[in-house]
Amino acid sequence: MPKEEKNTEKVKRIFLKDIDDVSKLKTLNMPQCEALCKEIRSVLIDTVSKNGGHLASNLGVVELTLALHRVFDSPADKLVWDVGHQSYTHKLLTGRFNSFSTLRLENGISGFPKPEESEHDSFVSGHSSTSVSLACGFAEAMRLEKNDENYAVAIIGDGAFTGGMVYEALNNAGKTMNNVIVVLNHNNMSISKNVGSLAKYFSSIRSSNDYVKTKFAVERKINKMPEAVGQPLSKAIRSSKAAIKRVVIKPTIFDELGFIYLGPVNGHDITDIEDALYAAKTYHRPVVVQVNTTKGKGYRPAEDNPGEFHGISHFDIESGNPEISTGDNFSTCFGSELARIAEFDDKICAVTAAMKYGTGLQYFAKKIPDRFYDVGIAEQHAVTFSCALAKSGFTPVFAVYSTFLQRAYDQLLHDAALSGVHFVLGIDRAGIVGDDGETHQGVFDIPMLTTLPDITIYSPYCYSELKMCLSAALFTDSGLCAVRYPRGREESFSDSEYASTDYRIIHSSDKKVLAISYGRIAGRLLEASKIAALSGAECAVLKMTKIFPISNEVVSEALSYERVVFFEEGIENGSIAEHFGSMLHKCGFKGKYEIHAINGFIKQASVESILDRFGFTPEKMAKTIIGAESV
Amino acid sequence: MPKEEKNTEKVKRIFLKDIDDVSKLKTLNMPQCEALCKEIRSVLIDTVSKNGGHLASNLGVVELTLALHRVFDSPADKLVWDVGHQSYTHKLLTGRFNSFSTLRLENGISGFPKPEESEHDSFVSGHSSTSVSLACGFAEAMRLEKNDENYAVAIIGDGAFTGGMVYEALNNAGKTMNNVIVVLNHNNMSISKNVGSLAKYFSSIRSSNDYVKTKFAVERKINKMPEAVGQPLSKAIRSSKAAIKRVVIKPTIFDELGFIYLGPVNGHDITDIEDALYAAKTYHRPVVVQVNTTKGKGYRPAEDNPGEFHGISHFDIESGNPEISTGDNFSTCFGSELARIAEFDDKICAVTAAMKYGTGLQYFAKKIPDRFYDVGIAEQHAVTFSCALAKSGFTPVFAVYSTFLQRAYDQLLHDAALSGVHFVLGIDRAGIVGDDGETHQGVFDIPMLTTLPDITIYSPYCYSELKMCLSAALFTDSGLCAVRYPRGREESFSDSEYASTDYRIIHSSDKKVLAISYGRIAGRLLEASKIAALSGAECAVLKMTKIFPISNEVVSEALSYERVVFFEEGIENGSIAEHFGSMLHKCGFKGKYEIHAINGFIKQASVESILDRFGFTPEKMAKTIIGAESV
Repeated sequence: MPKEEKNTEKVKRIFLKDIDDVSKLKTLNMPQCEALCKEIRSVLIDTVSKNGGHLASNLGVVELTLALHRVFDSPADKLVWDVGHQSYTHKLLTGRFNSFSTLRLENGISGFPKPEESEHDSFVSGHSSTSVSLACGFAEAMRLEKNDENYAVAIIGDGAFTGGMVYEALNNAGKTMNNVIVVLNHNNMSISKNVGSLAKYFSSIRSSNDYVKTKFAVERKINKMPEAVGQPLSKAIRSSKAAIKRVVIKPTIFDELGFIYLGPVNGHDITDIEDALYAAKTYHRPVVVQVNTTKGKGYRPAEDNPGEFHGISHFDIESGNPEISTGDNFSTCFGSELARIAEFDDKICAVTAAMKYGTGLQYFAKKIPDRFYDVGIAEQHAVTFSCALAKSGFTPVFAVYSTFLQRAYDQLLHDAALSGVHFVLGIDRAGIVGDDGETHQGVFDIPMLTTLPDITIYSPYCYSELKMCLSAALFTDSGLCAVRYPRGREESFSDSEYASTDYRIIHSSDKKVLAISYGRIAGRLLEASKIAALSGAECAVLKMTKIFPISNEVVSEALSYERVVFFEEGIENGSIAEHFGSMLHKCGFKGKYEIHAINGFIKQASVESILDRFGFTPEKMAKTIIGAESV
Repeated sequence: MPKEEKNTEKVKRIFLKDIDDVSKLKTLNMPQCEALCKEIRSVLIDTVSKNGGHLASNLGVVELTLALHRVFDSPADKLVWDVGHQSYTHKLLTGRFNSFSTLRLENGISGFPKPEESEHDSFVSGHSSTSVSLACGFAEAMRLEKNDENYAVAIIGDGAFTGGMVYEALNNAGKTMNNVIVVLNHNNMSISKNVGSLAKYFSSIRSSNDYVKTKFAVERKINKMPEAVGQPLSKAIRSSKAAIKRVVIKPTIFDELGFIYLGPVNGHDITDIEDALYAAKTYHRPVVVQVNTTKGKGYRPAEDNPGEFHGISHFDIESGNPEISTGDNFSTCFGSELARIAEFDDKICAVTAAMKYGTGLQYFAKKIPDRFYDVGIAEQHAVTFSCALAKSGFTPVFAVYSTFLQRAYDQLLHDAALSGVHFVLGIDRAGIVGDDGETHQGVFDIPMLTTLPDITIYSPYCYSELKMCLSAALFTDSGLCAVRYPRGREESFSDSEYASTDYRIIHSSDKKVLAISYGRIAGRLLEASKIAALSGAECAVLKMTKIFPISNEVVSEALSYERVVFFEEGIENGSIAEHFGSMLHKCGFKGKYEIHAINGFIKQASVESILDRFGFTPEKMAKTIIGAESV
């Protein structure tokens, strides 16, 4: 269709504002598509420069997304975006152009797929490597409903392909599931440069492009014939072509897994992509389509530095200068300190799951590449691999975001805690993370970690304490240790006068109220106690740094108070506050014990706004202290 | 060496008792090896028939294990047994023949590798798919120590190969790690028949066996030459052979991942295996050796029914009749009830991760194969796949052992709880599991699950209650629901008179003591209260079935007591008891609150013995009630 209309329509430009329904995309001709892609790129760059977000990955999939919506019928066909941070173009094309300026803002649209926003967002996502499993589930549901018209399409980067879940899913899909199409978005990156044999392998797949093009073009034409004519012809051509394919295209890993492999195609040529996707639809068997894209495509600074423009805060469009990455934060403090120590201790190894820059391990990687391991998006392997290093006498340090460590709970229990090896976790982004929303908040690690027998957990509140804790974890403690710290910089409230690896109690003149916290909230609590004191409501403050195990000594400090208030930036069930309360009551505490923690999933907003929502500003904490004080 | 000594030594039979050092195995000639294998099989059958354990898998790897110890130098070379239930022969050969009769008994040797037992057990294991990650860690440690003499050898079945961790590890090993050898023990089984494309794929790998044999034999001979002569020769031959290999053996999935692939070889021919292993050592690159074995080899009943003889209790050697599998238990009750309901509700789907029989889903699989999914040992995929089914309007039920669900914590949080889909978990083997020891106890699921916002958790204490809970979870509740039940049969203490899906309070004449529990311990508690009453110590009993969320109503029931005692068959941190206590104290409870739960890892013993150890017999619970009552 598009081709016939070409001549009459080519002058009429279509804008994002005109796409009131995604089906309209199918009526566009190629010049219209290309112009639309240009507009999309400009909106992406403009919005992300203001709101922050994922840029490079989104710029890479503009043409791919458009092609997907032209070839498939969302929401009847299910598009599943792996990780989902590359779904911005999809959002722009499915009814969210007008709200796009609210991207990642409080009450705005999410930076990840979210079914509550649109029926075109088939499933919530934010963590890597789930898309093929989801596509299998959708495809199976179609089969059970005797629907063989529709498709479940997973769109997944080669980075996410390093996660083991993908293979679990491919192993299932390849044998039995039809109508599953996996679009492998190959851009040679996870977040930083992709690692492992697969990365090398995907790059090595080279086919005779002319042949592939011809084949797709033929198949696309057949696909458009009336079914009675087209299907037998297609079948005949396909089987003869399959024989040729074995010679021309070398068999891929996907063939072995039971998939038909198509590609690679140029991910910035809409026609090429569409030809391949139309071909994929004809098989009614599991198909992989490899689409080669360039991360950051169309914006020079992002093309040049896709890692920097992966997840980014505000930046200046003209210069491409990120406004944030200057200055220190907990991650760089952790990373540079670890690198410093490891230069003098040749047993220390650093491990990351595709987060070299995010966790500040770039210093280590540069200084001591021999003991630096980026294992890809593979937290399970990262933990168990580290355990064997530890068993051999090395001291591995796995730096990982709190939310992503959830992937390795069993390995922490079964391989780390049970074996008793000395192994240090640097848990980054612990606590409220902010704009990335529900899928990324680091508020579940405490309940998870405190089930691990004999673990030691530190939660420092400033840089100097972070360094002290890291040193204690490396050189004083044994077994499994975790040092957890928040996203961003140390706060002005965190007075290093009170730095300690254990706990500090700042007494008040009377013994009525004790307020307890740890991490950055402890700094805010010190401030809150000063504010409360101004209102005549004195309270003692217990600042914990080693938060687990909770010693009888620290509990006994709290016993003599009438009222104990625990503030915790984490979910309540299984919190330190809950464990502390349990011990306190066991010791016969008869006063009032209050927990101010988090319940449920936490929607996107700035970190400060969320902390305020939960009452974790010094002012609100002071009110909490005063409020019930007068009760 | 063995060959020269053949004539003089062939008559001298060597017994297991003579293997005082594993290195002695290298001195045996082939007839001695074969006789030893015969003895090993007889010991395996004899011991497992008495103590229970894993039989079929161990009978399958007798020759393989002997060959591994003859070719490699444990413990300098690290042998890593995946899952580890197939390590019995390894234990017999490495100093544990004399203690082998204590296999799986209290204070006896473990049914899984355990470094505290022997330096030859390189790492603790019990869960699937960790071995390649561990081998990577050991190999990396060797590299850092500039040791290129030794090897890290993962021995892994094709069943464990369906777990995603393996690919995360292969992806890392294939690119950079030398001295990693993966022995793929291909027996076409996980625990039940293996599933997925890989199973089919491994079976399809056929090579020209004669060619492979010749190649290995040549390489073995070269390997034994003085280094100066052997190495260059070996190199020359290898490169010419590699060219031939590409023609004769088709490239495998392992080649694509950067591994050299050797095999398949006959896993019951010691010489064949050894030739391949010697060849593998020569490459100093990552190598996969595929060894085809027969599960249950040498014992007809186990060869015929490897599934039944996978993990087994006592059995009669003569007839091969297992003494246990008669009669019902919580698993069969769950499985048959689910199948019954699903016959009338075509939205219900059943999912298992390679545990069709263990979880009682064989009834469902037989009655409704169309909605039954065995996804392989892939708990992560199982959960996320189920979520997409649920999102499409189906009601998936994933039946899984408590301990293995740990693999899917992130998926439960990120894909199930956050999306709010209606999805039911049947959590089998919840609580003490017994003989399998630390790696298998189901005592961590409660803290893990109670962090999931909006989950509903039931813990029934008898069959009729299990059925009621399953029905409630399927038809009354929404969102994520879990029904958890123990290994084995319902207990005589569990009087179905008190069956309920919520809670029941059995009042006493005074309001002093309230004892609380759930699951099978609640039944024992009812009995304990009767015993206590005989001593004049009356106590009320609160039996919970819906254990989470804890309603204010149930907490308020406890408020008026002077002393509340919570018994819980699970670990204390994050327990229901801890959450209950936290709520109770929030409501102003000023009495004495006691938690009797579990802390730390739990060593192997019978279920009853462990329950007794933790004070969960009716008699000991009665004493607890009385004891402090008099305080």
